[in-house]
Amino acid sequence: MGAHSGFGKHAMQSSYLLILIFTLISSAATAQAPQVTPPAINVMPMPATLTLGAGRLMVSQTFSVAIAGYTEPRLERAAQRFLRDLERQTGYFLTDRLGDASHATLVIHAEHGNKPVQDLGEDESYVLDVSSAGAKVTAPNPLGVMHGLQTFLQLVEVTPDGYAAPAVHVEDSPRFPWRGLSIDVSRHFITMATLKRNVDAMAAVKMNVLHLHLSDDQGFRLESKGFPKLHELGSDGMYFQQSEMRELIAYAGDRGIRVVPEFDMPGHSTAWFVGYPELASGPGPYQIERRWGIFDPAMDPTRESTYKLLDKFISEMASLFPDRYFHIGGDEVNGKQWDANPKIREFMQAHNLKSDQQLQQYFTDRVEKIVSKHHKFMVGWDEILSPGMPKDIVIQSWRGQDSLAEAARQGYRGILSSGYYLDAMAPAAQHYLVDPLAGADATLNPEQQKLILGGEACMWEEFASDQTIESRIWPRAAAIAERLWSPQQVQDVNSMYRRMAAVSAHLEELGLTHRSSSEVMLARAAGTDDIAALDVLAQATQPASITIRETEAEKAGGIQTSDIPLNRMVDAIAPESAAARKFSAAVDQFIASKFHDAAVESYVRQILTEWRDNDNALQPLLQNSFLLKEVVPVSQNLAALGAAGLQALASIDARKPTQEDWRQQQIAMIQQAAKPTADLVLAVAPAVQKLVEASSASAATP
Amino acid sequence: MGAHSGFGKHAMQSSYLLILIFTLISSAATAQAPQVTPPAINVMPMPATLTLGAGRLMVSQTFSVAIAGYTEPRLERAAQRFLRDLERQTGYFLTDRLGDASHATLVIHAEHGNKPVQDLGEDESYVLDVSSAGAKVTAPNPLGVMHGLQTFLQLVEVTPDGYAAPAVHVEDSPRFPWRGLSIDVSRHFITMATLKRNVDAMAAVKMNVLHLHLSDDQGFRLESKGFPKLHELGSDGMYFQQSEMRELIAYAGDRGIRVVPEFDMPGHSTAWFVGYPELASGPGPYQIERRWGIFDPAMDPTRESTYKLLDKFISEMASLFPDRYFHIGGDEVNGKQWDANPKIREFMQAHNLKSDQQLQQYFTDRVEKIVSKHHKFMVGWDEILSPGMPKDIVIQSWRGQDSLAEAARQGYRGILSSGYYLDAMAPAAQHYLVDPLAGADATLNPEQQKLILGGEACMWEEFASDQTIESRIWPRAAAIAERLWSPQQVQDVNSMYRRMAAVSAHLEELGLTHRSSSEVMLARAAGTDDIAALDVLAQATQPASITIRETEAEKAGGIQTSDIPLNRMVDAIAPESAAARKFSAAVDQFIASKFHDAAVESYVRQILTEWRDNDNALQPLLQNSFLLKEVVPVSQNLAALGAAGLQALASIDARKPTQEDWRQQQIAMIQQAAKPTADLVLAVAPAVQKLVEASSASAATP
Repeated sequence: MGAHSGFGKHAMQSSYLLILIFTLISSAATAQAPQVTPPAINVMPMPATLTLGAGRLMVSQTFSVAIAGYTEPRLERAAQRFLRDLERQTGYFLTDRLGDASHATLVIHAEHGNKPVQDLGEDESYVLDVSSAGAKVTAPNPLGVMHGLQTFLQLVEVTPDGYAAPAVHVEDSPRFPWRGLSIDVSRHFITMATLKRNVDAMAAVKMNVLHLHLSDDQGFRLESKGFPKLHELGSDGMYFQQSEMRELIAYAGDRGIRVVPEFDMPGHSTAWFVGYPELASGPGPYQIERRWGIFDPAMDPTRESTYKLLDKFISEMASLFPDRYFHIGGDEVNGKQWDANPKIREFMQAHNLKSDQQLQQYFTDRVEKIVSKHHKFMVGWDEILSPGMPKDIVIQSWRGQDSLAEAARQGYRGILSSGYYLDAMAPAAQHYLVDPLAGADATLNPEQQKLILGGEACMWEEFASDQTIESRIWPRAAAIAERLWSPQQVQDVNSMYRRMAAVSAHLEELGLTHRSSSEVMLARAAGTDDIAALDVLAQATQPASITIRETEAEKAGGIQTSDIPLNRMVDAIAPESAAARKFSAAVDQFIASKFHDAAVESYVRQILTEWRDNDNALQPLLQNSFLLKEVVPVSQNLAALGAAGLQALASIDARKPTQEDWRQQQIAMIQQAAKPTADLVLAVAPAVQKLVEASSASAATP
Repeated sequence: MGAHSGFGKHAMQSSYLLILIFTLISSAATAQAPQVTPPAINVMPMPATLTLGAGRLMVSQTFSVAIAGYTEPRLERAAQRFLRDLERQTGYFLTDRLGDASHATLVIHAEHGNKPVQDLGEDESYVLDVSSAGAKVTAPNPLGVMHGLQTFLQLVEVTPDGYAAPAVHVEDSPRFPWRGLSIDVSRHFITMATLKRNVDAMAAVKMNVLHLHLSDDQGFRLESKGFPKLHELGSDGMYFQQSEMRELIAYAGDRGIRVVPEFDMPGHSTAWFVGYPELASGPGPYQIERRWGIFDPAMDPTRESTYKLLDKFISEMASLFPDRYFHIGGDEVNGKQWDANPKIREFMQAHNLKSDQQLQQYFTDRVEKIVSKHHKFMVGWDEILSPGMPKDIVIQSWRGQDSLAEAARQGYRGILSSGYYLDAMAPAAQHYLVDPLAGADATLNPEQQKLILGGEACMWEEFASDQTIESRIWPRAAAIAERLWSPQQVQDVNSMYRRMAAVSAHLEELGLTHRSSSEVMLARAAGTDDIAALDVLAQATQPASITIRETEAEKAGGIQTSDIPLNRMVDAIAPESAAARKFSAAVDQFIASKFHDAAVESYVRQILTEWRDNDNALQPLLQNSFLLKEVVPVSQNLAALGAAGLQALASIDARKPTQEDWRQQQIAMIQQAAKPTADLVLAVAPAVQKLVEASSASAATP
C-alpha cells in the first residue's frame, strides 16, 4: 500500500504555497512515533498525508467534472454519482455537469482499469490536489479515484461566502487492504434498500468489504436454486432472491466494495435443517430457531452425503458471488449432537479423532477442499484454524489479537473483529482505540504483520432490526473505518468525535436514516410528534451494554426470541450520547477554569435547568404509552441530576461549599441514577457527580 | 359511489354495542346539511360513516391476517404490504403473519377482482369492522380492501397498555372517483425513488390518480423509442427509461393508483423542439428552456407532419401507459410563433380560422382524434374545450369552478385543480375549504354534478426539486385528499389539522422524508448538526407565497432559472408553521379566559422567552453560512416579537395596562416583522400582535 508513485509528476503541485501542518508516514518503521493531532479538517478517515495549501476552491452552480486519461463505464458512473452526491450536499443542480477536461472544475485522471473482479490488495491509492483554480484526483485506477472523490466531498463545507473546499495536497492510501462491515441478516432480516444505504455509507468512509452473514440458526436468507428448501423452509419467506443479490453485488462493486458471503457451518445451522434434516447430526424434524444463543444442531461431518450437498451448494454460491473469498463461519460448535450420536462416535474412533475439536478440524478440512475446488479462498472464525490448513485461508478473529498473532506466526492471514462489535453498544472511542497491530500482533515481525489484513466491524442482529440497524452501525462504524485506513498514530479521540459528527451529517445528506429513524421511532413510541421533552431525555441517555440487556432479560425470566419487538426507547436512541460528551467536556472546562469561565457555566446551568424541569413536561407522554412507561424512573432521575447539579453550581457561585453529608447523599443518588434502568443508562450522571464533588470546600478553594 | 351493499350481511355487526356518534350520508340530497364535528379519531380522509363501538382490538406480536373469499396475487401483495406497514408502525415483527382465516386477527374478504386495468369509477367502497375479538375488511373488490386496510392502519394507536384500534363500524366510499396528485417532473427532475414514496403516501390517504407532467419547455422526461431525440436532447440526461416507468405503473397499480401521463402541447413544448425543430412553428434551433414562464415556441398545427409524428408518438405512449386517460396539456399558448409565421397565417385564412384560439381548437381537435384512435380519452386543461369536442374528454381546470360548471352544462366531465396548487405555499386549510362542487358548480343539477369527477392537487416544480418536493406535498396534500374523499360537510379545520398531524407522523413511519429532509437541509445550510436554535426560527416561520417569491426575484433583477439552487431556508422549512398555529391558539385561549388560564399563560411565556433569547444563540450560526445570512433580520425580528409579547404579558399580569404609544410602536414593529424577508414570513407575528393589543386598558378590564 505504498503512496501513489505519480505524485512527482503532478502538474498542479508547483502552484502551491505549501504549509505543512500534518504529515504522517504510514510505515511500520514509525509505529512507535508519538500520537499526532490531526488538522481541523472534517475528513474521515484521515488521509495518510494531508498538506494544507493557501486559499480554497469555491464550489458553486458552475461546478463540473471531467474524466481525463483512462475511462470505463464504472468510472463514468462514479463521476456521475459524485455529482449527484455533491448535489445532495450543496443543493446545487449538478447532475448533468460531466464535461470536458479543459473547462472542468475537477479533473479525474486514472491510469488504467482495475481487475475484472475486485481483488484483495489492489492499489487503492490516490492523490488529491485542490487549489483555488481547480481540483484534480489522480490515481492508478478507478478504485483510487473513488476514494479521492469521497475525500473531496468531505472537504466541501459551507462558509460565509459560499461552499468551498480548502486548498490541500493529499497523498493517501490505506493502512490495511481489508476494511469490512459484517451484517448479520439471519437473526433479523435486513432489506436490500437498507443494505444499499449501508453500502453508500461504507463507500463514504472508504470501507471495502461487505460481509453478509447469510445463514444461522434463526434463518437462511438467500435463495438457492439447487436446494430450494433452504430458503423456502428456512426463512419465513424473508430471503434475498439471487437476482437481488446480484444487483447488490453490482451496486457494491460500483462503489469499490467486495461482497463476501458467509454460510455458517457446521454449527449455527438449524435453519438449513428445516428443509434438509438429513444434513444434521441429530434426529429431526427441525424448526427455525426463535431463541438467541448457541444451540446443539450441527452438520454431520461423518457422512459423505453432507459433503456432496455442500459441494453442490458451494458451487452454486461460488458462481453467484464473484469475490475470491468465501466465508464458512465455523464458530461455536458445542458438540452435543456429535457426542449423542453413536455413529458419529464410531466414526471418530475409526478415524482416530480424539475430540469434537478434531472432528470439526476434519470437517473444516473437507470443506476447505470444496471451497478451493471452486476457486475460492476459505475464510472462517478463529475455530477453523488447525495445523493442516493450507496457508491461503483467512482467519477472522472474534477472540482478539492473540489469536491472530498465533495464526500469523504459523503463516496464516487474519482480520480482526474482536473489539469491533457494534451491537455491544460501546462508545466509538472504545472501538477506535482497538488496533489490529496492537497487543500480541505488535510483537510480530514485519513479514508476519503483513498477514494481518485489516478488520471488520460486526453488526449482529439479535437486538437490531431493519428499522434500527442503521442507527446501530452509523456513525460509529466510521471510527473503525478510520482505524483500518489511517496511519496508526491517528488516535486523537476528540478529533475523531468532531469529524465523526461531520460524517454523520454527511451520511444523512446521502440518504442514510440513522438519525431520522431515531426521531421516527421516538414519535412512534410516544404516539405524537410533539416530543421535544422526550428528545431531551433521549439525548441524555444511551443504551446499556448488550451484556446488561441480556442479563436483565434473563433476570426477568423471559427468554429473548426473534419475536421480541425492538420498539423500546433503548432501540430508538443513539448508541452513544453526544449530548453527554458535550456536557461532560463543559463541566471539565468549568472546573479547570477554577469556576471562572462564565460562558461555560452559563451553558452548564442551562442544561441542568432543562433536565430539572423536563420531567414535568414529559410525564404525561410517558404515562400515555406502554412503550415509555419503563422510562418514568429514568426521567425522574434526570430531573434529580439536574437539581443536584444546580445546587452544586449555586454553592460554587456563592463560594459557600456544600456540606459533606449533602454531597454523600447526592453522590449516592447519582450512582443509583447511573445504574441501568429499562436497559438505558443516564450517560450524563458522571459529569454531574464531578460537579457535586467540586462543590466541596477543598475543591472550591481557588 | 353508493355505500357497499354487503353491509347487511356482515357477520360481526351484531356483536356491537353501537354508539352512534357520527353519521354522514354521502349523497347530493344532504348537500345543505350543517357542518358536523368529526369524532376524535385519527383517520384521514374521514370515512363516509364511522360508528364507534365499545372496547378495542389489541394489536400485538400475535397479530395476523388472512384472506377469505376471493383472492389474487395483487390482493396477497396488499395483505403483505399491510403487514409490513403495520410492522413499521408498531415495531412488531409481522412480515410472515399471513395465515388462515380461522386464527387471523384481521380477515380480508373481497367478492371479486377488479378490471384488468383500473378504471375511473370502479367501486372503491369497503366495510371495516373492528371489535375486541378481531377485525374484518369486506369489500366488493381489492381496491376497496386496500382502502379498508389503510383505515385500519390509521386506527391503530399507542395506548398505556399496548397498541390498539378502537372498535368501529365503518362504511366508506369516496365522494369523487378522481382523486389525483399531479407532479411536474419537467421543471426539475424527480427521481423514481421519490415518486414511489409519493405513491406510498397517496395510497395512505386514498388518492387514486398519479398525474405526471412529463414534458414542458424545461425538459422532456421520458424515453421515447420512436423519437429518441426527445429524451436524448431534451432532458440533460435526466429522464425515465420506459422500463422504469413500467415499474412505477405496476407499483402504483398495486396500490390502487392509476398513472396518467401528460405531454403538454401545442405550447409548453420547447423541449420537444431541441430534437425535432421541424415540429415548431418558428425557425430553430432550440435549446432546453432554462427560465420560468410562458414562452413562444408552439407546435405547428398546420403541417400534416406534425400529426404524423404525434400519431406515432401517442401510439407508443398509449401502449406504455395502460390507463384509459391521456393528458395533452393544452394550456397557455401565447400564439406569438403562429402570428409570426406567414404560412400559418395563410393556413388560418384558407381554413377560416379567425384567431389563435380557433387555430388551437383545430389542433386539439386533430389530436383528440389521434388520442381516441389509440383508445384513450383525452384530458386537457381548460383551454382545450371547444364546441366540437366529443363528450368523453375531461377538462382539468386551473381556472376554477366557473370553468368546470360551464363545461358540465355542455356535458363535459371535469376535475378541479384551481385552489389545489401545492407550490403556492398556502396553508392546508385554504386548500381544504375549496370544494369541487362549490361556487358555480353548486348551481349544477345532480346529473351535471356527476360530471365533476373530482380534483387533483398540483405540485409544480419551478421552486421545488427532488430534495424538497416531499415536504412541499406532504402532509398538506392529505387535506385535499380528504376534500375529495369525505362527505362535503366534513369541514372542521381544527379536526383536519389534528388528523393531518397524525397522518404526517404516519407517513414518516412509512419512509416518507418530508420532515427529516427539512432537518437535513437546515443542518446542511448551517454546516453543523447543532441546530436547535435554527429549528426554533424555522418553526416560527413559513415560506411567503410563491407570488411574493417570484416578485422578489424579479425585483432583485434576477431572472429565475432552472439553475437557481433551492437550498435556502425557505426551501428547507415546512410550507406551514404548526408551531405558529399552536401558539396562536394558545394566545386566543389565554385572552378568552380573560387572562385567568395560568397553564396556557405559562406556555405562552415559555415560547415568547425562547424567541426573545434565541437570536443570541443563533447569530454565530447565521453569520457562518452564506445560505443563512439572509435570515439574520428574521431572527432579530423574532427576538423583538418575543420581547414585545413578554412586555405585554407582564403588563397583563400586573394589571397595569400598557400605554397607547407603546402599543402603537410595537404594532408598527410587528407589522414590519410580519412582512416577507428572505421569502419567509414570521407566521407567529399576528398572535403576538393580539397579545399586545390585549394589554390595553380596555382589554385588560375583566
